[in-house]
Amino acid sequence: MLGIDPDPGELWPSAAADAAEGPTGTHAAAAAVLAHCRALIDATAPACVAVKPQLARFELLGAPGWGALEAVIAHSRSRGLLVIADGKRGDIDVTARAYALALGAGADGPFGRVGGLGADLVTANPLMGRDALQPFVDAARAQNTGVLVLVRTSNSGAADIEDLELAGGGTVWERAAMLVHGLGGDGVGAAGLSDVGAVMGATEPWHLERARELMPSATFLLPGVGAQGGRVEELAAAFSPGRAGGLVSASRSIAGAYRARGGEPAAAARAEAERLRESAWALSTVR
Amino acid sequence: MLGIDPDPGELWPSAAADAAEGPTGTHAAAAAVLAHCRALIDATAPACVAVKPQLARFELLGAPGWGALEAVIAHSRSRGLLVIADGKRGDIDVTARAYALALGAGADGPFGRVGGLGADLVTANPLMGRDALQPFVDAARAQNTGVLVLVRTSNSGAADIEDLELAGGGTVWERAAMLVHGLGGDGVGAAGLSDVGAVMGATEPWHLERARELMPSATFLLPGVGAQGGRVEELAAAFSPGRAGGLVSASRSIAGAYRARGGEPAAAARAEAERLRESAWALSTVR
Repeated sequence: MLGIDPDPGELWPSAAADAAEGPTGTHAAAAAVLAHCRALIDATAPACVAVKPQLARFELLGAPGWGALEAVIAHSRSRGLLVIADGKRGDIDVTARAYALALGAGADGPFGRVGGLGADLVTANPLMGRDALQPFVDAARAQNTGVLVLVRTSNSGAADIEDLELAGGGTVWERAAMLVHGLGGDGVGAAGLSDVGAVMGATEPWHLERARELMPSATFLLPGVGAQGGRVEELAAAFSPGRAGGLVSASRSIAGAYRARGGEPAAAARAEAERLRESAWALSTVR
Repeated sequence: MLGIDPDPGELWPSAAADAAEGPTGTHAAAAAVLAHCRALIDATAPACVAVKPQLARFELLGAPGWGALEAVIAHSRSRGLLVIADGKRGDIDVTARAYALALGAGADGPFGRVGGLGADLVTANPLMGRDALQPFVDAARAQNTGVLVLVRTSNSGAADIEDLELAGGGTVWERAAMLVHGLGGDGVGAAGLSDVGAVMGATEPWHLERARELMPSATFLLPGVGAQGGRVEELAAAFSPGRAGGLVSASRSIAGAYRARGGEPAAAARAEAERLRESAWALSTVR
């Protein structure tokens, strides 16, 4: 799965060259980012099931950036890809509902249907508890989409809060996993997977067996492969429910593959995306 | 302090009436929301020190919504108000940095300076730990702005994760408070307040004394007054460092004051904002 984290300072040479001759400013940056993202999606679509745009990168380009994000999502859909809006939002109920609609189907009101990125899945933060997650789950069920809740993230700072040991046993992240399992129980589909999944960092795979015990029906989004150091070969536990049990996400290692492998950016990105796909499928076949 | 959470279905009659005669769709909704927000800011500016736009409400209006947010911030600045961008973001380091720049001063690169909402303060989520918060602190210090970290929120779901008791004593939220204090130590200014503050829900004021012990130099953002049930009179501990130690935030109770009090929306909002200010100042004078 392709993570889309475009940095205007690290666009593919084709998009950067077009931009170098044009105007500067936020609109120009958003146009160049969009050209880069389209080329990246076109190169890797045959080897991916989904794209995961990182919302921060588009917000950094203001209103034109939000427009570019909408275009990136439309382009991804035209290539048959699922879209995961990675914003890690979390807030009180009325606000969580606004986020869920903003990233999902939009809202109905006196101005008709407004907004809505149309994402198939969104990431959400569980710190504020069940009533802050429920609006995402409710919106997902109304829209036939899904939610991926942060459970144990891929960064070293995860030790500061997520790994804290609780007085009653277990850790904070295991409690978040229980929340995910509880919220997802009513949303388990025919394939045995729930519409409430979990973000499980790929950098510390020894957590995955325990996470699978706590969340037997959850799809695991597995970021941190590549630039952050995670290795697909260590993620077998994620795939125990089948191929769809794990979504392996890589961003910089795909977009920047040409720097490591040499060659043309599109071909290198495609090759790296295919390598990740084959590695992940090999795991799911073994089990 | 004025929380700005505009719902296109609950605009002031003046903005709603203009809109009723015009087109529908996301652009029209964003224009009406902007008109509503400008009127709300004009009415309450003399009784407020800051505005706190809720980013979810603007994201729900897509690219036009982000443009409206930029205009709301510019209008607030023209009235001399501080701006708190309430997005509760949290992500790995490179992404946290992108959020900090997106909500702050923007980023420099091959397209010149791009983006940047220009907020004075941003809210951030501590779940992912210190390395996910540090980019917000670094950006704040480079920009002479500040960060407000979620410590104990105003919703009932705060009990699910934030209130969990730890094996070593204390709770998850107290550990988040220690993170805030640690991050803020180098940023304490002449007034004795740090550039790293805390979001402490006003709905459960018995936490404030303990929070003040753990974070003696932190500004407390106090949401949850009014519609969520919090009462200013119970927030004295927040103000122990002085008037600037607490920022009392109310949204729906100000914008919707005319429904409870009767009268014209602008006058009712101003009266409610003044009442909150007087209540808060009375507390800080007593101590």
